Formats: sequence, C-alpha cells, structure tokens
Amino acid sequence: MTPHTPVGRPLRPQGKLLQEDARRHHRSLLLQQLFREGPASRADLARASGLTRVTVSDLVGEMLADGFVSELGAPAESRVGKPPTLVGLAADSHHIIGLDLSETDRMSGAVVNLAGTVVARHEVHVDGAVGEQAVELVQRLAAELVAMTDRPVLGIGVGSPGVVDTLGTVIDAPNLAWTDTPLAARLAEAFELPVFVANDANTAVLGEHTFGESGDGGLMVLRVGTGVGAGFVLGGSLLHGHLGAAGEIGHVVVDPSGETCACGRTGCLETLLSAPTLRRSVAEPGVDGPSVLADVGTRLGEVLAPVVAALNLHEIVLSGPAELLDGPLLDAADRTIRERTMPISSTGLAVRTSKLGEDVVVVGAVVLVLAGELGVS
Amino acid sequence: MTPHTPVGRPLRPQGKLLQEDARRHHRSLLLQQLFREGPASRADLARASGLTRVTVSDLVGEMLADGFVSELGAPAESRVGKPPTLVGLAADSHHIIGLDLSETDRMSGAVVNLAGTVVARHEVHVDGAVGEQAVELVQRLAAELVAMTDRPVLGIGVGSPGVVDTLGTVIDAPNLAWTDTPLAARLAEAFELPVFVANDANTAVLGEHTFGESGDGGLMVLRVGTGVGAGFVLGGSLLHGHLGAAGEIGHVVVDPSGETCACGRTGCLETLLSAPTLRRSVAEPGVDGPSVLADVGTRLGEVLAPVVAALNLHEIVLSGPAELLDGPLLDAADRTIRERTMPISSTGLAVRTSKLGEDVVVVGAVVLVLAGELGVS
Repeated sequence: MTPHTPVGRPLRPQGKLLQEDARRHHRSLLLQQLFREGPASRADLARASGLTRVTVSDLVGEMLADGFVSELGAPAESRVGKPPTLVGLAADSHHIIGLDLSETDRMSGAVVNLAGTVVARHEVHVDGAVGEQAVELVQRLAAELVAMTDRPVLGIGVGSPGVVDTLGTVIDAPNLAWTDTPLAARLAEAFELPVFVANDANTAVLGEHTFGESGDGGLMVLRVGTGVGAGFVLGGSLLHGHLGAAGEIGHVVVDPSGETCACGRTGCLETLLSAPTLRRSVAEPGVDGPSVLADVGTRLGEVLAPVVAALNLHEIVLSGPAELLDGPLLDAADRTIRERTMPISSTGLAVRTSKLGEDVVVVGAVVLVLAGELGVS
Repeated sequence: MTPHTPVGRPLRPQGKLLQEDARRHHRSLLLQQLFREGPASRADLARASGLTRVTVSDLVGEMLADGFVSELGAPAESRVGKPPTLVGLAADSHHIIGLDLSETDRMSGAVVNLAGTVVARHEVHVDGAVGEQAVELVQRLAAELVAMTDRPVLGIGVGSPGVVDTLGTVIDAPNLAWTDTPLAARLAEAFELPVFVANDANTAVLGEHTFGESGDGGLMVLRVGTGVGAGFVLGGSLLHGHLGAAGEIGHVVVDPSGETCACGRTGCLETLLSAPTLRRSVAEPGVDGPSVLADVGTRLGEVLAPVVAALNLHEIVLSGPAELLDGPLLDAADRTIRERTMPISSTGLAVRTSKLGEDVVVVGAVVLVLAGELGVS
C-alpha cells in the first residue's frame, strides 16, 4: 500500500489519538464487511466484527450521515417478527479518480465508484511530454476527470511506471524522465485531495486482488507492455521489497549473450517478452508465430519456476495484449513452471490472463484510495 | 507462524473476548518493547506503546506477578528528582524447549531462556527410527530436556523436516516416514504444554530474523543439509504460501538431464547442492574443490536471481556446513545474483552465512513459542 501520510502525525498514536484510531479501525471493519460481503443488518455486522451492537449502531449512524452507507430496507426472505433493516455500501455516494500512466503514447484515467465500477473515462496523448510537462499533463487529466463527476471525490489514485516510494514520489521513471518527482505531493497540493501513487504493476496486482476474484493465497500479476514488471500480493498485503523495488522480474538476465535491454544490460527477460518485441517477433517473414510465442513462454516459465517454488503462489496473472499472451505463450509458461517445480509447489497454482483487461491499473489505483481513506480493499 | 490454536475458540472474538484480546495484545506490546529494546521505565513503556500510564502500571504489575518481568532499580545516569524504576524481561523466569529434527542421524534440542540463550543441550540418535517410533523418540528427547530445567516451561517448539501445516501436523516428511502426523497435538497431549511445530527452514528463518541481527527488509534463509530448503520472512512475517509449501527451492529443476533427485524428479537444485553431494563432489580424485563449489554457487545464483528480483530481498543467509558454503560457493552465488538482476534489485542485498550456526533451527523453534505464547519475536 502507498499510504497518504498526513504531515506531522506522530508515528505512534498516544492517549486520545489511540481512541480515535480505534474508532477509525472499527469503522473500517464494518465498511470492509459491507464491501466484501454485501448488505447486512446491524446485528450481522456486530456478529461479524465482534463489536457491540451499541458501537455498531453508533458507527453505522455516522456512516449514514457521511453518505458512505445507506439503508436498503428488509431482506425479502425475512422470518417472523420485525424484519431487520439492511445497510449497504452506497457505491455512488463518492467517486474516486484512477489514473494509469503506464502506457507509452497516452495517459488514461477513469471516474470509478466505491464498488470499483467505472463511471466515466478520459485520456490524454503524451506526445513526448517528459519531466515537468508530463506532471502538468497528469494534472490536466486529473482535472478533466474531477470535472466529470458531481459526487464528492474521495481521492486520486495513480499507477505510474518506474520505482515509486511509499510517499508517492516517483524515484525513477525513465520513459517520463522523472527522477525523485513528488507526484503525490504535487497532485495533493493542486487538488486538495488525498493522493496515492504506486508503481503500475503494484496497482495492477491490487486491482486484480480486490476486483479480479482472487484469493489470499499469493498472487502475482505480470504486466507486459513497453516494459515487463510484476506486482505481488502475499498474505493479503502488497509486497514492497527492501528498497521498494519488488517485482523487477523483467530485468532478470535470461540470455547473457542476448540483446541489449532498455536498462543498459544484456539479455533481460524484457528483451524477449515486451509487447513491442513480441509484436516484432511474430511479424517477421517466414516465422511461425505460435512457436515463437511458445519459446518465449518457456523462457518466462524458467524465470518464474524459482519464484513459484519459493512463494508457493496461488495465482499468476498475465496482464497485457491478450492476442500475444493468451494461448501458446501462457500455455508454455504454465507447462514449464510445472515441469520445473515439485507438484506441491504448483498443484494449487492457476496461470491465467487478467479478467479486468486494460482497466486493471486504473481500478488498482482506485484500490489505493479505498484502502488509504476507508481501510477497505 | 504456526499458532497453537485452542480447540473450540471462535475465529472472530466477540464481546467480552474482544476486551481480553485487547488486554493480551497490550501486554504483548509491552513485552515486545522490553524484548527488542531492553529495560525501560513505566513512563517509557507508556510513551512507546501509546497506552495510558494507568494501563501500563496495571499490566506491568500483572507481569511482575507472573514473573515475566522484574524490577531492575533506577538507571545509573538518572537526572534530578526521584529516579524511575526500570523493568526488564526476566529472561530466566521461564524456559522454552526447542527441538531440531532436521538432521538425518540425530534429533537435537535445547533448553533456552526467554532471551534466546541456550541453557542446556541434549540429543538422541535416530538409528533409523521412523513413523511412530520417531514420534516416541521426539517425546523422549523433549521429556529429557524438560527434566533438565527447574523453571516453568513456557512451551515446546519444533523444527521438523517436511511440509507442516499451521496446526503443527507434519503433512509429509519422507525421511521420518511421517504422513499427516499430528506432532504438535501428540506432544501437547503428552506434556500438557503449548506446542508449535514448523518446517525446519521456516524455524531457521525465524531464528535468524529474531536473534541473527536481521532487519525487516526481506530475509531468506537457505538451509543446506540432507535436503535443500528455504524460509522467508517478508514484511516481518513468516511466509507460508498457498498450501504451506513456500520455500521448496531445492526442487527447482536446474538441469533437466541431471541426476535423479530424492523427490523422484531429475536435476533439481538439491542434486547439486545438498551437503552429502557437495562433500562427495569435492572429494572426488583429481577434482579442484574450490572450482567445483564455485560452479554450484553459480547454479544457485541463477535460481536465486529471479527470487531476488521478484522480492527485492535485503538478506540471503546460507545455513549449513560452513566449510562448504562459505567461500567460493557463496561468492559465486552472490556474483551471479548481481550479474543477473538490476542494480536496484541487488544494491541493498547482503548474502552471508548464518551467525547462529547450527543452533538456528532450535532457536527458531523457540521463537515459535515466544511469538505464540507471549506475542514477541
């Protein structure tokens, strides 16, 4: 997660603050329940959360006032006696702006409701904008999206290329020529809204985990685009890594005598697997496309086998151009992983493409806001 | 972690239980502070934990009565005014039994105090014991260790070979011919003590994480013995994996035309890297030992590179025979990882041997008990 940390807040809560934190935590418990399980009565919420009926009624009252939940009436199959009133997440009470900066030619974004449904979309062409110009382009895109909704905006979430720190500063994104660019702070200042920025593969894995029917058994999303990168959700949490650089699997060397990579080194997985390279490879005259894709899939499987064995993953999701990834490439990767690991490592593993398609980064950016502001994901 | 889950306890605490859980949680906060940071005054504990002075005094009183902490008098450099009394973890108030079942010829164990210091040791020869006989051998070893201390025993922790579930049942340990063997339940019944069992590589990584001067940036311990397996602590937590089989990196195929492995497959990393194989390889007539070890280190580095890139690990610790691992093997693995990953993936990485030596599994088994019973690690 990339938290929006209010400046000056003590790292450890003290005295009164602890009580406020507890209240916020309890409220998140209830919202999380409604978010994941759907509408429930106050009694259901008390049972599921372990909070008292009084506390639940109090918190529900507060959330009704804020508009985050609404009363839905009694369930149809209610038994004898006075039927309990159900409360549910008011999905359109607030909207969230999600941005995807990971594509080379355009920046895309969407207005998304609290249930993860895209309400409106917008995009801007990059036209070679880099550095400060690219930051201004992000601001323009965000402003246009904010203008497209009449609901209160809960916050802005951004999936950015490159390495991003936990404060939402882009440490290094070569394509946009960003170095130590405080993107979250810039947007927060411009819009006076909470802003959360994370690497696009990390937002993708959050999107898939929350809205892609994924479990908590260990999920990897491999993004295949201009570059190749991965995001991991392990034990229900996004993996950051020691220096915030988890997921840089596109730059594992698979062929020391291979082609020069964008990173300056030689024979990285990305030199075989990036979308432009795949497109070029299958279009070469006289080439058997499916067999080329299967060869790349085998190399991918060889890189992923140690990761699968180490983590005992539940799901690997490939995200990118389906016409290239789905089919011989995915099949060969899947087969190679199983050939190169013990049955217990791969028995419970599913290798598939994303169900969210190209929305996965935008929707994942929205999850950053849901998690940071409401404590749900 | 492998929790000792009392039978019949509801999964979600309700009403009164929630308060007891909160009290237990608060007590763990204080113990954790004393465990990690050393002696402190009640005021220090209140500041660090965010609890009120009254709550802290109450809980400290309870822990003084239980013997887990003791009063140490005032600090030497105390300023003017009445000096505050320091309280500290009473390391020898209770002892813990730690067992290491991972070696082929013997089962070893120790009596360990709350600070992780080994107080006494004992071992028994396996002599081919398998199945029920092996369970009885574990019971005998534990009984002999329990008899070696006159302090209350907080619990028994066990590092076992094989795949172990979260209830401490050994799902599969071929060397001991254990299949679905409820080791934790058997020992808990025999000793009427809390018992925690985990895979030996998992206990090793907990031991290294807690007592081996390791940080929270991502730690992998690779155990090289009869078999080869790894344990991971990521974000401060032990990684279990989808089916509890995380860390099975010894069975990644590195040479499809290689030797037959104990697992029945061909060319697993373990066929090159197990301690018996390494010993055999360097002893072959006419062989250049260091160069053989460097070759194996290179293969190990090739398997670890994708894992390092994926997880952005902080530390990789090799645990096993130092005369084989430390030197050309470790150096070649380290070099290969750096050659095959981006600088940002490996810049912050240290590759080293364990500082805890052969005690790492026993001490890690003790951490299972500390964490499960006192909430500290």
